[in-house]
Amino acid sequence: MFSVTVRDHMMVAHSLRGDVFGPAQRLHGVTYVVDATFRRRDLDADGIVVDIGRATEELRAVLSELNYRNLDDEPAFSGMNTSTEALAKVVADRLAERVERGALGNAARGIASLSVTLRESHVASASYEREL
Amino acid sequence: MFSVTVRDHMMVAHSLRGDVFGPAQRLHGVTYVVDATFRRRDLDADGIVVDIGRATEELRAVLSELNYRNLDDEPAFSGMNTSTEALAKVVADRLAERVERGALGNAARGIASLSVTLRESHVASASYEREL
Amino acid sequence: MFSVTVRDHMMVAHSLRGDVFGPAQRLHGVTYVVDATFRRRDLDADGIVVDIGRATEELRAVLSELNYRNLDDEPAFSGMNTSTEALAKVVADRLAERVERGALGNAARGIASLSVTLRESHVASASYEREL
Amino acid sequence: MFSVTVRDHMMVAHSLRGDVFGPAQRLHGVTYVVDATFRRRDLDADGIVVDIGRATEELRAVLSELNYRNLDDEPAFSGMNTSTEALAKVVADRLAERVERGALGNAARGIASLSVTLRESHVASASYEREL
Amino acid sequence: MFSVTVRDHMMVAHSLRGDVFGPAQRLHGVTYVVDATFRRRDLDADGIVVDIGRATEELRAVLSELNYRNLDDEPAFSGMNTSTEALAKVVADRLAERVERGALGNAARGIASLSVTLRESHVASASYEREL
Amino acid sequence: MFSVTVRDHMMVAHSLRGDVFGPAQRLHGVTYVVDATFRRRDLDADGIVVDIGRATEELRAVLSELNYRNLDDEPAFSGMNTSTEALAKVVADRLAERVERGALGNAARGIASLSVTLRESHVASASYEREL
Repeated sequence: MFSVTVRDHMMVAHSLRGDVFGPAQRLHGVTYVVDATFRRRDLDADGIVVDIGRATEELRAVLSELNYRNLDDEPAFSGMNTSTEALAKVVADRLAERVERGALGNAARGIASLSVTLRESHVASASYEREL
Repeated sequence: MFSVTVRDHMMVAHSLRGDVFGPAQRLHGVTYVVDATFRRRDLDADGIVVDIGRATEELRAVLSELNYRNLDDEPAFSGMNTSTEALAKVVADRLAERVERGALGNAARGIASLSVTLRESHVASASYEREL
Repeated sequence: MFSVTVRDHMMVAHSLRGDVFGPAQRLHGVTYVVDATFRRRDLDADGIVVDIGRATEELRAVLSELNYRNLDDEPAFSGMNTSTEALAKVVADRLAERVERGALGNAARGIASLSVTLRESHVASASYEREL
Repeated sequence: MFSVTVRDHMMVAHSLRGDVFGPAQRLHGVTYVVDATFRRRDLDADGIVVDIGRATEELRAVLSELNYRNLDDEPAFSGMNTSTEALAKVVADRLAERVERGALGNAARGIASLSVTLRESHVASASYEREL
Repeated sequence: MFSVTVRDHMMVAHSLRGDVFGPAQRLHGVTYVVDATFRRRDLDADGIVVDIGRATEELRAVLSELNYRNLDDEPAFSGMNTSTEALAKVVADRLAERVERGALGNAARGIASLSVTLRESHVASASYEREL
Repeated sequence: MFSVTVRDHMMVAHSLRGDVFGPAQRLHGVTYVVDATFRRRDLDADGIVVDIGRATEELRAVLSELNYRNLDDEPAFSGMNTSTEALAKVVADRLAERVERGALGNAARGIASLSVTLRESHVASASYEREL
């Protein structure tokens, strides 16, 4: 199995609802350093999983919809906690949609699965992995 | 599949028995930077895999039983080599026991598996992964 | 010259005023991974610059006054931009005050200077260095 | 499942053929920081997956066949793109061959799989994983 | 003293002349992860050393003149070794020229010094520091 | 000012004397990831500060005198605390002696200063800087 991983980041404000979150129930913020990994069994005709340049552009496009925002004000997240793991799924699903509609090229439709990891600090991160 | 990873470290002395270990047969020491990863198929009612704060506390509790010690003197390790990979299993098993007895909350009982990685330097690490 | 550096982090919301900041004028957030470095010409009677454990505690105490907050609501920052470099000075000055009033022990009063670096992502950081 | 990972690097020149690669079609270069991971279900008689020292030596031996070279001039790569993911497979296959012929010791023949990750920058990497 | 650091990278081929370089006399390649640090005594009217966004753009512009190239073919480097430390000076001097001609804004003319670090692997780097 | 930095590591056991050290008074251990930085005003005739390969070898030679040992048993450290900052000085002084006796070549005698940083975990480090 082959994989390619690209990295970018976003900087958002949010708050979390539930006693378990303690002080994180207050409005605060976070930098997510985001790794998106694309996996496939065989390389495409160019000898790659996906072009690193295009993968980087698509990841940036997905993150730009969230970057420099207060997630508490985003209708897309109403009624849910924007925990690190939940946001990993949001980014993964939006990337998957782009792969499926051809934004990474026709060959990239051979991608079997992808995973997204959000590092929220030097000591904590969360991931979501899904098939395509 | 979702996952959450938290990081801490411990600083221990030990020696290893067996010709394969060369100079590491002498009493020496190591800092293990420890990553514990918790995985589950679906998020709990709070929208998380496990609370990062509680996971960090439980990892710290497990490591504090080993930290600042000479592992050669620990009865728990008598008759075994405290290799990096063997210690990864020790930490993972002790964390699993805490999850199972509810130390991370009732919801955390939905955790499907966990893995523990011990980084012993900038160029070497070992991991152990198990189901819950 | 000797130095000791300890690391912790904080997660805050804020916005920045001024056209130069572009989308960062919106309320957003950031994780600051914070390195505090203490410097002195000679070691103290215990053979150290400062105890790493106590330095870590004092850094944590300073960061806890800011952590999990919206800095736009903090009276201490009214009328100023909480840029990364400005916050590095805030953390450094508050740490310096603690050193000077003895929070790190009497021997730590021999510290000559300190610097604080705030890493806001994997690609950007800011620092402030001052004498004591 | 246990694993051990060792790290080294190589510095090579190459060019890539295909419009998708844009400016990377020109002769350029790259540092690959290489992580090789060895996995097995149970530890060997010494309590390890593989000796970290020997694994490091074998990884270095494989990389030294490529290091400080222009890959465009290497007969082994004629007719293929030396993409990061394709090179990950080359390194993994050559390491696997060494494991199978006993270079890491007889016990290492119990290794179940290995993966190789090549980090080409702070923002991109590729991997290949295979069974033994 | 305040500072701001931004990071980017470039991927180049080159060879080095001189027995001291051993196998690096062959044509090979390298990824340089580049940190550019801007220093000034006081913050500007916006409360910053330099806008991180603009600093990132200018660093990228400087690196794009070198990126994806064989430095042995660049007239600018004829007759000199493109060692990591020599390239750090090239990048620093070109950035300094941009600061001086106002590319980072008028306020950035208050920058006192800058340094550039090129990381060529996980185990080696070089820097050049100069006044403005 | 130019600089070159090379990295290696050592794994030692030790204990520290003094109430300030708390549990670190027990025999324990540590991995030090060691960065040695060499500085000079001008490059030598080969266009470098020091050859990275030779600098790496000399750093390795210095660390090999300490690696895989219990520092409590080393006569060189009798009567002193082997704190991280004190060991940084030991490594720096031993490297300086090698530079001065020509181990890095005649040109390396032009080195103006060197600093050594020992990272003991992902959250703490210490340095010593000296002239040559």
